[in-house]
Formats: sequence, C-alpha cells, structure tokens
Amino acid sequence: MSDDASLRERAAKVVPGGMYGHLNAAIFAPGYPQFFVRGDGCRQWDADGREYVDLMCSWGPVVLGHRHPAVEAAAAAQRADGDCLNGPGPVMVELAELMVDMIPSADWVMFSKNGTDATTQALMVARAATGRATVLVAHGAYHGADPWCTPSPAGTTASDRADLVEFTYNDLASAEAAAAQAGDDVAAIIVTPFKHDSFEDQEPADPAFARGLRALADRLGAALVIDDVRAGFRLDLRGSWESLGVRPDLTAWSKAMANGYAIAAVTGADALRGPAQTLYSTGSFWFSAVPMAAAKATIETLRDIDGPALMERAGTRLRDGLAAQAAAHGFTVAQTGPVQIPWLSFAGDATLEKAMYWSEQCLAEGVYLHPWHNWFLSAAHTDADIDRALQGTDAAFARLRAKFAGD
Amino acid sequence: MSDDASLRERAAKVVPGGMYGHLNAAIFAPGYPQFFVRGDGCRQWDADGREYVDLMCSWGPVVLGHRHPAVEAAAAAQRADGDCLNGPGPVMVELAELMVDMIPSADWVMFSKNGTDATTQALMVARAATGRATVLVAHGAYHGADPWCTPSPAGTTASDRADLVEFTYNDLASAEAAAAQAGDDVAAIIVTPFKHDSFEDQEPADPAFARGLRALADRLGAALVIDDVRAGFRLDLRGSWESLGVRPDLTAWSKAMANGYAIAAVTGADALRGPAQTLYSTGSFWFSAVPMAAAKATIETLRDIDGPALMERAGTRLRDGLAAQAAAHGFTVAQTGPVQIPWLSFAGDATLEKAMYWSEQCLAEGVYLHPWHNWFLSAAHTDADIDRALQGTDAAFARLRAKFAGD
Repeated sequence: MSDDASLRERAAKVVPGGMYGHLNAAIFAPGYPQFFVRGDGCRQWDADGREYVDLMCSWGPVVLGHRHPAVEAAAAAQRADGDCLNGPGPVMVELAELMVDMIPSADWVMFSKNGTDATTQALMVARAATGRATVLVAHGAYHGADPWCTPSPAGTTASDRADLVEFTYNDLASAEAAAAQAGDDVAAIIVTPFKHDSFEDQEPADPAFARGLRALADRLGAALVIDDVRAGFRLDLRGSWESLGVRPDLTAWSKAMANGYAIAAVTGADALRGPAQTLYSTGSFWFSAVPMAAAKATIETLRDIDGPALMERAGTRLRDGLAAQAAAHGFTVAQTGPVQIPWLSFAGDATLEKAMYWSEQCLAEGVYLHPWHNWFLSAAHTDADIDRALQGTDAAFARLRAKFAGD
Repeated sequence: MSDDASLRERAAKVVPGGMYGHLNAAIFAPGYPQFFVRGDGCRQWDADGREYVDLMCSWGPVVLGHRHPAVEAAAAAQRADGDCLNGPGPVMVELAELMVDMIPSADWVMFSKNGTDATTQALMVARAATGRATVLVAHGAYHGADPWCTPSPAGTTASDRADLVEFTYNDLASAEAAAAQAGDDVAAIIVTPFKHDSFEDQEPADPAFARGLRALADRLGAALVIDDVRAGFRLDLRGSWESLGVRPDLTAWSKAMANGYAIAAVTGADALRGPAQTLYSTGSFWFSAVPMAAAKATIETLRDIDGPALMERAGTRLRDGLAAQAAAHGFTVAQTGPVQIPWLSFAGDATLEKAMYWSEQCLAEGVYLHPWHNWFLSAAHTDADIDRALQGTDAAFARLRAKFAGD
C-alpha cells in the first residue's frame, strides 16, 4: 500500500470522510494524492515522494514560493522574540502602515485569520455603518464557508441567508433589481473582482458593471465591498479594481497575504473607521506577530520584485503553451481568468470527463493542477518551471487524444 | 514619549480605534501596555521593555510557556519540510489519532483556526444531523465573535440570532423552558464547562445541571455541545466535563491546543460522523502542518508532565497567597473559577473601581492580570514565579489599602 493510501485509511477512522473542505482529494480525479510532505519554491512533494510542478499554490496562499528566504527570515526573527502575546507587536502597526500606504482605498486595516473572517467582518462594518441588514451578493459567488456563505446548504438555516439578495455577476440590471427588492435596507454590495466560480469559465468584470456597482452603492448609501481574498496580491498590489478606476469602501484580503502564514484583513475607507471601531470582532490568534511579520515581508517582496508582473509573465507563457498544445492535439479549450489565476476547460465537457482525465494525466506527469477550480501561479514560477509543466501537460494532451480522439 | 505611547499614536491612524477586540488596552485600566515584544516561559515584556510575570497567558493560548522547547522543535521540524501545502501532512492524522485516543467523547476530529470556527462548525454539524435550526445557549455566555455570538450587537442583524433561545447557566428548569419554547426544533444545546462570563464571579457547573442538560439533549434528540475553547487542555485532558461523568456529543477546542499556534478543532461522537461529512466547512490555512505539529507536541507534553496538575498546583499557591494578602489588608474578595483559570473580585465593587486600581498597581509591580476577565495559568508557572507574582500583588493590596482603607 502506498503511504498516501495508508494515511487515507488511518484518516478515515479519525476525520469525517477521511478529509473535508477544499483539500479533500476524494472529490478530485482518482490518482490525486491526499497527503503532502514538502514544499520548495513552486514544487511540492506528496506522501509517496512524488514531485510536482505546483500550479495550485496551496489554493492561493503561496505567492512567492515555499520557504521564501525573506519571508522565512522575517518570521524567524519575530518568532525568536514572541508570537502570541498579551498584545500585538510593533509589527502590527508597521504592516497596517504598509497596507494603507500601498492600497489607495485603504485608510485603515483590521486583521483576522480566515478569508471568511474578513468577508464577514466587512459586512459587519457595513451593517454597523448603515444600521441596515441586507447584502447584495452575486449568485454562485464564493465568499467563504461560514453558514451565511458556504456553497453547501448542509448545517445552515434559513436565517443564515435571510439578509441576502442575489444578483447576476456582470449584469448591472440584476443588481439594480436586487437593490429595488431590498428597498431601503441595503447595507452592502459584496463582489469578487472577477467571476471565479468553480466549474465555470471565469469572467473578467465588465468595467461598466464595476462602475455601475460603485454608483449603485453610492446612490443607496451602502458600502461597496470587494472580496479580494482569492485574487488579492496576485493581480495588482493596489487592489484588483484599482486599474478600472473603481475604489471599494471595504476590501477583504487573505490567501496570498503572507505566503502561507495564516492571516486575513479588511481594509476600509476613512468614513467607515468609526463604525469599524464599534464592532466586537476578535480571535485568540488574530494579533499574533509571526504571521504579521511574514505578511509584511511578503508584501514588501511582492512590491520590490513586482510580483504581479512576474506572475503575469509565467501565466502568459503557460497560457500560450497550453493553447498551442491543445490546438496541436485537436482539442478546443477555453483558457479564462487572469493569467496569474488561470483555468482551462474543454469544449463540450459538461460532465468534466475530459478535464478529469487530462488533470489526472498531468498529475502522473508531475504537474499538479485542478479540473474544476481555478489554478494559481506564484512569483517562484520561472520560465524553466513553466516549460517543465508544459512538458507534462503535452504528454497529458497526447493521452487525452489517445482516449478521446480530439473534440 | 514611551515606545508604547508612540506606537499607539501611529496605530490610531491605521487601525480603527488604534486596536480592537479582546487585546484592546484602551478598555483596561490606564497604564495597561498595548504593545508587547517578547515572551519567555511565563514572562512577557512590553514595548517599553518592562517585564511581567504573566497571569493572562495571552488570554489562554500559552499553556506550556512561551518558546517551549518541545513545541518549538516540533514546529521547526515540520516547517523545514512544509506548512501550507496542497493537502494536509501526515501530522493531521497523527494529531487526530492522539485526540481521539485521549478524549473519551471523541471518535473523530475536524480542524480549523479560530475558537469561533469550532463553535460555529459544531452547531452546523448538529443542524446537519437533526435537520433542525434552534440552539439553546446560556444568557451572557461567550461562544466567539461571529455575528451569531459576538457580545456586541454592532454589525449584527436580527436574523443572526433568530435561531437562538436562551437559558440561565446552572438553572436546568430554564433550559427545559427554553426547549419547550423551541418545540421540536432543537438541534443543539451549547454550554461552557463552567460559567466564565466577564465582569462576574465564575461558577462551576452544578453536576445535576450538567447531567440534566445531557438528559434533556437525549430526550430532544439534540446534540450536547461543550464549548471547551477557553477551558480545554487546562483542567482535564479528557474534556472538562469528563470528571462529572457527562460526555458531550460535540466539543469545540482551540486556545491552549498548540501553545499559541493558531488552531481549533471540533471533536464528535461516531453518530455525528456522517452529518459532519456533509458540511462544506473549510479555510485556506486550516490544514497547515506547522500548527498541527505544534498541537501534537503541546498535547503530548501536557499529558506527559500532567500539565493540568502543574497548573492546579500553581493556581492553588496563587489562590492561597491572594486570600491571605486580601485578609491581611482588610479586603473581602471572591476568588472564583478553577484555580488554573482563576479570577478575583472585590466585595461591593460593582463599578470595578477597586479592581481597576488594584490591577493597575499589579502591573506597576510587574504582574500582568485582568480586572474583569478570568486569568490563565500555564505549566511554566513555578512556585518561584507564583511567589514573585504574590510579591507584586501584595504591594498592590497595600496601595489599594492606602487609597480605599479596606472594604
């Protein structure tokens, strides 16, 4: 029995289903490893010692590559002094100053641990500011796994969603209709910077839609909240809608903020500073200094090396390579999402039969990616790493062709 | 200007209120330091370099003392290989096996980051199992800071609490009445192992109340959930009600689980394994291996050195010393809570005038404790540390006497 199989057998006895959540390998194609033992740069090793060029980056957190020296040095220096103390360290102030300085929409920062903490806290700030309850949210958008937002209804109640009204992403008229339905009770509109729902091709935000949501929030006196948990620090260090000229009132951040260390944040506009101050929002580990030191080093490094541009270069090389391979092997594919957070789907593959088979072949060729969730690149992906990944994807396309004979 | 004052001035510009949550020093007596720079064993140092015998243990997480060698070695070894990867490490299985082995009510474990994650997830499991919504909860009990449980109404909506019905701690008739009010919709009863509400003397659970809640949950077909986030791993490694012979269906754990590393867990009975498996409950950092390695080392060390007994010894010495000092200085005090999680209040001190002044004098004497929230001891508190703390508290009682002339 492989080490992975043996660990799965033991896990099945002490963890529900053997594993749960987004890292549950039972929901992926057969052959996906469940347990991992090592990471270095953009490579990861599973429990059976197999090495992968990693195109998932642990579902987003790893943005500079595993064991990045600047991040590890900053974390180690802080750890030698203290981590979880009776108050925050000076590094909390330094990190908040760095973010306020870098993010034009940010006048203040509140820290937490999970992306869900940040999206939930942002809505609390908006509700405290407006005295209203309703939040407009795009149908099918992922904003975390608390009862109000988890994609599965299991364990949730009708009350958990009672304050939500849905609209359709990139359909401003639907957002206007949702606002009309909510009457004068809209506290916030929450939106991801692009449409990154699982199982679907990703969609950039239509600039007119983004500007329209900004105007709608202003008209309603509601807060515009960008959920930048997934995309933040990969596309634009100023915030993912800054290039559209659309500034949110509140932004939720997490995943890539500290290169794998657990931290999340809400940044907000000055007008919401007072309401934010009224919340009782906290956690036992929210002010620990080591993840803050790691976040400061991560953000400074991303700024100094222009991390988003490096990821854009790697992502473009990957996209171009995959496009050529798909065409050569006779498959029509859609490559969607920003190149730093890419995804590939096969035409006419509603059952994901091709996606599952192809991704499984990629795995066998040492390339870790995902059949129905967007991938993530890091600044550690060099041209050589992308070329190594493309070797594997090419072999996988060849096997896919042997099985499906093209489209 | 002191370093602490200067940091507060900078923080006020970039963090709402300069700080928020349970570590916000603005809500304590004047003189409480806000920023901390170092921890070692049971000592902490603030940003101005002042050393304290720490009786708060970072509000609970630090249970073996800062920089405990076994915990740090386990974390470092795991960190050298990897932390936040594309799947959990083998250490997740080892940690889950350890907990299932140690905790009689635990047949399985689910991991997360915040205590609030664990209490919320436990209620989700109970709701998934029963298909019901209502949760019975003790009035004034702290179960976390999500909208459904945060003590402040700011930023919350009526829907957030719509599924809760309150009872009074240690009053079984009130729990029966709450159940009657909820009709056939009770999914869970959630309760802390003792009454540890802020601003109030703590109360042990009446064993008849604990047994009565167990019987009530059984009669209703609802889950009995113990919120052991605050008390877990300090009183009894088997769970805080095991000594009463009362076993919960679900238990929420966090704070002391990994000696300061961020982790939380729900443990549950076999009958709830299937429902737990149906949840989509996850977070970007929930399966990171370093906090799990730290948790495993923390729990093993607590077991091997009998941590709860060490804390009981330290807590008893502290309690006896404080009792003698209070009497000698002419103050009537109540010392409540388990000795490992103690608190002291002054008779007739509803405005906390004495508590605030006394705790401020303790601070000035190098003893860090809290005027209206329970304290925490660790296994690192030796007799000598307690005696050093008692030196400081004695001087503080003397100053209190100079100001208030006894009761």
